[in-house]
Amino acid sequence: MSTNIFFKKKKISTKIFFNKHKLHKNFFINDIKTLTLSKKNDLSFFESIKYKSDAIKTEAGACLTTKKLSNFLSKTTQPIIVDNVLFELAKILKALYPDADIDYPDNTLKLISKKNKSVTLNTNVLIGKNVKIGKGSIIGSNTIIEKNVQIGNKCVIGSNVIIKNSIIENNVVIQDNCKIGQKGFGFIPLKNKNFKFPHIGKVVIEDNVEIATGCTIDRGSIDDTVIGKNTYIDNQVHIAHNVRIGNNCMIAGQVGFAGSSRIGNYVSIGGQAGVSGHLKIGDNVKIGGGSGVVKDIEDNQIVMGYPAVPLKDFLKKNKDKNE
Amino acid sequence: MSTNIFFKKKKISTKIFFNKHKLHKNFFINDIKTLTLSKKNDLSFFESIKYKSDAIKTEAGACLTTKKLSNFLSKTTQPIIVDNVLFELAKILKALYPDADIDYPDNTLKLISKKNKSVTLNTNVLIGKNVKIGKGSIIGSNTIIEKNVQIGNKCVIGSNVIIKNSIIENNVVIQDNCKIGQKGFGFIPLKNKNFKFPHIGKVVIEDNVEIATGCTIDRGSIDDTVIGKNTYIDNQVHIAHNVRIGNNCMIAGQVGFAGSSRIGNYVSIGGQAGVSGHLKIGDNVKIGGGSGVVKDIEDNQIVMGYPAVPLKDFLKKNKDKNE
Amino acid sequence: MSTNIFFKKKKISTKIFFNKHKLHKNFFINDIKTLTLSKKNDLSFFESIKYKSDAIKTEAGACLTTKKLSNFLSKTTQPIIVDNVLFELAKILKALYPDADIDYPDNTLKLISKKNKSVTLNTNVLIGKNVKIGKGSIIGSNTIIEKNVQIGNKCVIGSNVIIKNSIIENNVVIQDNCKIGQKGFGFIPLKNKNFKFPHIGKVVIEDNVEIATGCTIDRGSIDDTVIGKNTYIDNQVHIAHNVRIGNNCMIAGQVGFAGSSRIGNYVSIGGQAGVSGHLKIGDNVKIGGGSGVVKDIEDNQIVMGYPAVPLKDFLKKNKDKNE
Repeated sequence: MSTNIFFKKKKISTKIFFNKHKLHKNFFINDIKTLTLSKKNDLSFFESIKYKSDAIKTEAGACLTTKKLSNFLSKTTQPIIVDNVLFELAKILKALYPDADIDYPDNTLKLISKKNKSVTLNTNVLIGKNVKIGKGSIIGSNTIIEKNVQIGNKCVIGSNVIIKNSIIENNVVIQDNCKIGQKGFGFIPLKNKNFKFPHIGKVVIEDNVEIATGCTIDRGSIDDTVIGKNTYIDNQVHIAHNVRIGNNCMIAGQVGFAGSSRIGNYVSIGGQAGVSGHLKIGDNVKIGGGSGVVKDIEDNQIVMGYPAVPLKDFLKKNKDKNE
Repeated sequence: MSTNIFFKKKKISTKIFFNKHKLHKNFFINDIKTLTLSKKNDLSFFESIKYKSDAIKTEAGACLTTKKLSNFLSKTTQPIIVDNVLFELAKILKALYPDADIDYPDNTLKLISKKNKSVTLNTNVLIGKNVKIGKGSIIGSNTIIEKNVQIGNKCVIGSNVIIKNSIIENNVVIQDNCKIGQKGFGFIPLKNKNFKFPHIGKVVIEDNVEIATGCTIDRGSIDDTVIGKNTYIDNQVHIAHNVRIGNNCMIAGQVGFAGSSRIGNYVSIGGQAGVSGHLKIGDNVKIGGGSGVVKDIEDNQIVMGYPAVPLKDFLKKNKDKNE
Repeated sequence: MSTNIFFKKKKISTKIFFNKHKLHKNFFINDIKTLTLSKKNDLSFFESIKYKSDAIKTEAGACLTTKKLSNFLSKTTQPIIVDNVLFELAKILKALYPDADIDYPDNTLKLISKKNKSVTLNTNVLIGKNVKIGKGSIIGSNTIIEKNVQIGNKCVIGSNVIIKNSIIENNVVIQDNCKIGQKGFGFIPLKNKNFKFPHIGKVVIEDNVEIATGCTIDRGSIDDTVIGKNTYIDNQVHIAHNVRIGNNCMIAGQVGFAGSSRIGNYVSIGGQAGVSGHLKIGDNVKIGGGSGVVKDIEDNQIVMGYPAVPLKDFLKKNKDKNE
């Protein structure tokens, strides 16, 4: 059963959608998932040799891939051979989830003014259908909580905040003007009109997180964007789709994360640093302010610079220069 | 006839405003324009030798310039010789367009709640006088569309957006919390109280553009700020006054453009890169994330670094350093 | 008498709160202040040898410090010896000012729609208790002015702005979507749940300042955050707690300031530059766009680079590299 609570799914079978491919296996697509998470009624995608080891073990019912890569695919998975995996993925996503490629404003919003014993809603709070807000939570004025969002207990959400497609756990503080759960930056470039990549994931913000003013956190494209327990994020930070930040991190102001990077636990990042896409940053890493991280970083490293290098190399390099 | 639909213009003649200058030519100033765009009833300005070739050919009726530069000015144009061209320009702009130096909030805004067949307005949408919104467009909650703004067909404008002094064409998507058309950063520094430079231009956003959450796009000062067709812009991007971005560009998160730069078509710019003012970036240019571009870039170049250099030089330099 | 108009203070005596310390001096804590500002009924804190000269001269009634540092403390000041000065400071702050560690949305906000002769309020303006707004000031739509905020005469505050815990003087322009006075980024990291550092300071914005769209200015933690007269700030600038910016400065787009730095008068800073915490930048300093300032800068210097160095060194270094 699909667990997507934010986007309505159409009923589509592999054989009918991919009818040119003469597939031997037919099933109604339960969901589209990564190679690792797919089960027998899911469709997956395998577009880079980087994911070879996941492809071998995948339990996906069918998988979009190229002729060449298809050799690595699990024998139980139906390959669907295409030239451009991501474009075909975007097309089936659009067919399956027609509303996930543009952030249509929630038309179920209602002005909720009553304050009950368990939740405090301030002035002009707009709440969508099926929103759940836990005991003791407080919502600031002019804030919009779109349909199906879940907010835990004892959260403090500021004013002018917009939350959509997100699950916020307990004791989370989100300061004014944060925008959480919107579509990320993804599309197939085409000459006249790009093809918008549907983003069907969500944002999960775990217990005790604090997010300061004016941050933007995009929802996941296929997978989720996750902020781990007790992580604190300063003003104007930008977190792109599918980024996973671990527990107990400290992220200073104006830091930016490109899509799909994974940040360990106890990581601290100085102001205005940037982390490129698809990187793995280990635990206990310290990244200096203004750094540009373009490579994976192992546990316990201290790095700085653009591109970021171990701190001692950065200091040496800059000492040499100034002499 | 002046075509400025956003700012009310006073009727001022050259001879009266510049009465100390004993001009031989007198006319009511139609508008203030660049050397290239000015016609015989327009006032122009020529403050740098950089624009010599435009000055020779200008059709402007009169032109603010310095004694030295006036020698290059078209013989049909009345020179108005001043010491500080930009300061005198600011003063005549302020006289002609008294409301363009401060973003006075639109006092014609009305809460429009009806949904008609052709346009969908969500909750608490505030719309100014003479706003035009095309068929099939959707406006999110708490969004403000100020007076005289034009929005084309099938646009999706998110929640918490503010649009002023702008023309938005068709099929444009603008995500939550974008602020478009506000006054840019421009003033004449003075000891006690700076003189605010009026910004009389607008923002034009062409067909099929997508702008993600939390971007700021300033209107033009004299000319316009333009985002070309099918260009996609990620979260928290800052675009200053008079910047012109071509078609089919991809601008990643937190990129910043200083005023008056011109970006070609099919340009891609990585996250947190910055482009200095008054530059010309060619077509098909790729600028790496975090780069600081301080010089013009020719077509088809790939650059990276701070300051940005050709990618192969950047890689070589950083290889050397780490060895 | 405490002068904190934004946060309610509890009545707590030194002897009872620090009862394990067997203090010889007992008084009701008037306020918590820096070493320099404290008077005989104030509690201060001395956590770094850097502040030795302030400690010698302090008039504080009592002072949190370490065993080692206590030797430098004024003989008239009661030392309170602790292992972790900042953690103990956070705890007494939390006891004294229970509401300063989380930005609880102002629940005194009221929709004020009347326009009187002296102040113009546009649509959906929410105003808290005891707010003062001076003659001739204009407030944009959907803007929130929280309780006790003071705004001077002839200010223009845009739409979608939130101001809290701030004093805005005269002729100030604040463009759309600025967020001013929120809690800064400060906490004591703890494994399961960080201890939030209360921020009891305010923001002061002096005469003739202009702040462009989408800036965030955090209030001071103990001291104040101050923007000096006639300083102009461009879009998306982030100013952390306790930063003091002098008069007549020009701060371009997307610049970021970490906490507690002091910027002189007539300083100009190019786009996307960053200034680390606890620095002193002199008067008439020019900082190039994209620079990362990590050291104090004396008066009249021009610096650029990451890390920022004198401009001539930056140019030399980059010339060498490209040859």
